[in-house]
Amino acid sequence: MSLIEDLQWRHAVKAYDPTKKVAAEDVEKILESARLAPTSSGLQPFRVIVVENQDLKDKMVQGALNPEVMRDCSHVLVFAAWDSYSDEKIDKVYDYHTDVRELPRGRFSSYTDQIKMIYGAQTPKEHFEHTAKQTYIALGLAMAQAAELKIDSTPAEGFSTSIVDEILGLKEIGLKSVTLLYLGYRDTENDWLSTMKKVRIPMEEFVIRK
Amino acid sequence: MSLIEDLQWRHAVKAYDPTKKVAAEDVEKILESARLAPTSSGLQPFRVIVVENQDLKDKMVQGALNPEVMRDCSHVLVFAAWDSYSDEKIDKVYDYHTDVRELPRGRFSSYTDQIKMIYGAQTPKEHFEHTAKQTYIALGLAMAQAAELKIDSTPAEGFSTSIVDEILGLKEIGLKSVTLLYLGYRDTENDWLSTMKKVRIPMEEFVIRK
Repeated sequence: MSLIEDLQWRHAVKAYDPTKKVAAEDVEKILESARLAPTSSGLQPFRVIVVENQDLKDKMVQGALNPEVMRDCSHVLVFAAWDSYSDEKIDKVYDYHTDVRELPRGRFSSYTDQIKMIYGAQTPKEHFEHTAKQTYIALGLAMAQAAELKIDSTPAEGFSTSIVDEILGLKEIGLKSVTLLYLGYRDTENDWLSTMKKVRIPMEEFVIRK
Repeated sequence: MSLIEDLQWRHAVKAYDPTKKVAAEDVEKILESARLAPTSSGLQPFRVIVVENQDLKDKMVQGALNPEVMRDCSHVLVFAAWDSYSDEKIDKVYDYHTDVRELPRGRFSSYTDQIKMIYGAQTPKEHFEHTAKQTYIALGLAMAQAAELKIDSTPAEGFSTSIVDEILGLKEIGLKSVTLLYLGYRDTENDWLSTMKKVRIPMEEFVIRK
């Protein structure tokens, strides 16, 4: 199937069958598509936390808009962004890039100096606004990958970031949760959205041609 | 090819062949994948402006980090988000949803009341932070769609949003530019990134398993 067919197939599932688990190899493909997501300056300023453990899920539902969806899904992917940029983080990524490419370290220093200057003039709050945005690219590609595998998914912003950060110990490693992606297989009887037509605004309204 | 193969194939092209144009039907597929992108509460709080006109592109390059890339590409897609949420905008979307689904208007009013309350307590600046994030989902899917068609693309945040907004008259229609996506065909001789290995941090560093 094409990407467009996959996107037409998917929807934000509202009820999961708690007895059906997503196979480990499929979870890996979804993570791989998130890992391959392009990001600003190639910094990949986020990580994905995979939560399969039911006890952890049951704790993370506190404060969630649709707790039963998180509880019953197979896996929760937590997209968590860097709380800030720093020269050290930027150097670490670019040293890795040059090492893998067998180039001398510092090969991209005129570029990294430029981005260090830009981020150096910003606050951590501005940094996190920017790192958080990058996670949405990966979130979208992870949903597309799930759809290609005919695995259901539900993106979620409606949860308590402070509770999730606390339970997963994210603050200590410089991360803040941004979005969740629930993975699993729909409970067709209870997923009310399954029977509804997908709606998007018409192309002539969505696109402005110049 | 699978999504993962498409994502491995693509990279942010740094030089385009100005003589090669992307076919109109392919541009439509890329726009369609952006239109199908999931968004928070299904509000699709952004539009895509398609710029093919060379004079407009030449004006928009002012203040861009890589002006020659924008100048030489075939099409520029401008992802521009709503400058704010409002009860009217939310009602318009949900009235359309219920009409298409042949449901009574107001069918989702308990939900829309909830989101109106949430956004009603926020500032326009907070609204735009949120609407801007949604564009990144569509940006990612548009890149994936371009890759599926073996069309090159380059996402760009390095441009003057004020100049682009002014040139395209976005303020007057309640939009603010967030990102650009250049589309076209690479100039292999001058696209220095073509010959370099794609680098992503290793899976064991990117993923945290709980």
